[in-house]
Amino acid sequence: MATRARYRLYYWPTIQGRGELIRLAFEDAGARYVDVAREPGGMKAMMAFLGGHRPGLTPFAPPFVQVGRLVIAQTANILAFVAPRLGLIGDDEPSRVAAHQLQLTISDLVAEAHDTHHPIAVGLYYEDQKQEAQRRAADFVAARMPKLLGYLERVLAGNRAGKGRFLVGRAHSYVDLSAFQIMVGLEYAFPRAFKRLQPRLPLLGALRDRVAARPRIVAYLASARRIPFNEDGIFRRYPELDR
Amino acid sequence: MATRARYRLYYWPTIQGRGELIRLAFEDAGARYVDVAREPGGMKAMMAFLGGHRPGLTPFAPPFVQVGRLVIAQTANILAFVAPRLGLIGDDEPSRVAAHQLQLTISDLVAEAHDTHHPIAVGLYYEDQKQEAQRRAADFVAARMPKLLGYLERVLAGNRAGKGRFLVGRAHSYVDLSAFQIMVGLEYAFPRAFKRLQPRLPLLGALRDRVAARPRIVAYLASARRIPFNEDGIFRRYPELDR
Repeated sequence: MATRARYRLYYWPTIQGRGELIRLAFEDAGARYVDVAREPGGMKAMMAFLGGHRPGLTPFAPPFVQVGRLVIAQTANILAFVAPRLGLIGDDEPSRVAAHQLQLTISDLVAEAHDTHHPIAVGLYYEDQKQEAQRRAADFVAARMPKLLGYLERVLAGNRAGKGRFLVGRAHSYVDLSAFQIMVGLEYAFPRAFKRLQPRLPLLGALRDRVAARPRIVAYLASARRIPFNEDGIFRRYPELDR
Repeated sequence: MATRARYRLYYWPTIQGRGELIRLAFEDAGARYVDVAREPGGMKAMMAFLGGHRPGLTPFAPPFVQVGRLVIAQTANILAFVAPRLGLIGDDEPSRVAAHQLQLTISDLVAEAHDTHHPIAVGLYYEDQKQEAQRRAADFVAARMPKLLGYLERVLAGNRAGKGRFLVGRAHSYVDLSAFQIMVGLEYAFPRAFKRLQPRLPLLGALRDRVAARPRIVAYLASARRIPFNEDGIFRRYPELDR
């Protein structure tokens, strides 16, 4: 690259996962970033950080982002740091606190979506916890997914400044990008349950469509940089979990 | 009270839970705060917020804190907001980002500790998911608890500025208070597993003891304001989960 990257993202190179929430922010803002582990030698560089072989605070897990001399981990923490610099949230503290609050609730939803296929142990294969996964997924689909998405729908409806179009304030923010991702992710993983639920989420559905139509997002989703959903990521399509 | 409270904390009145991480910060700093739901009429006030009957962003769940006109939810978000005002983290952005990163990893640990007794559904009783709980707790105790606490032990060892005494920088912070809470919580919930693990956590053990000896924490722990651990909270002592 001719221009030096401002941000170096470290995340697993074959899945969307939590890293996708960061990628979407960088892509939407047109940021100069490198998805390090997808470059030659990148996995080794990532593992050096995780092994504590680099100065500074060792991340517990990917994703983490290097900005100058800072290394920042935890998805919502990364977004709270980069979003103001990318123009993806307002300058005022109340907006940032509200955005971060919603982002952390999205993090909780992502963790719960993950646990539908790994309810017992992250260190075991899905096949070794399939029975428990069916029970947990049944609850997720019947109770948690409607509750959490229903909450975001109400936040949209209640945000008068944004006229139901934005989760925070009167403008597009990184939280809208993350909301897009959980909508398409949950639709991928649980197409039947999602289809039943969708009529109750008109504002979230419209938000997802508006984000999907943003020019840089259109270009990103059509590019090889967008890793397709697959059954190694967080949102997995296992028909037995989507009754 | 003669002096008006600066902070109004809303959390379930009969458990430590996630709210305890906020209570510890307020208590350690000597902040003027009210634990609203433990006051007469407080539960009703809390439910009014959760029902969306108050202006501003509706919290998804307790804890949340009212500071002036702001209502802030999500434990780690609350701490990131109040800690600089309470003198519980430095003013510089790198310290705050590092503290928040560690706090979010502590949040993950708290969620995993919760899921040992609720691996299938938060809406079901423990008795209805006891079998799955035994499997999940076995993994938590054998793999996740050592991994997460071992990570924090390494962070302490690697923080040269703090000489192994503080998780962030060269001074006491709110993250140290939260580390104290997960240490005593995990020891309460899993006394056998914790006893086996403890020799490998000398720095975390010493940190817990130093926090427990801070004058305001001594006073708090001896007061009726500190709710005892019990089997409705996050850290529950079920012997069958602690083989």
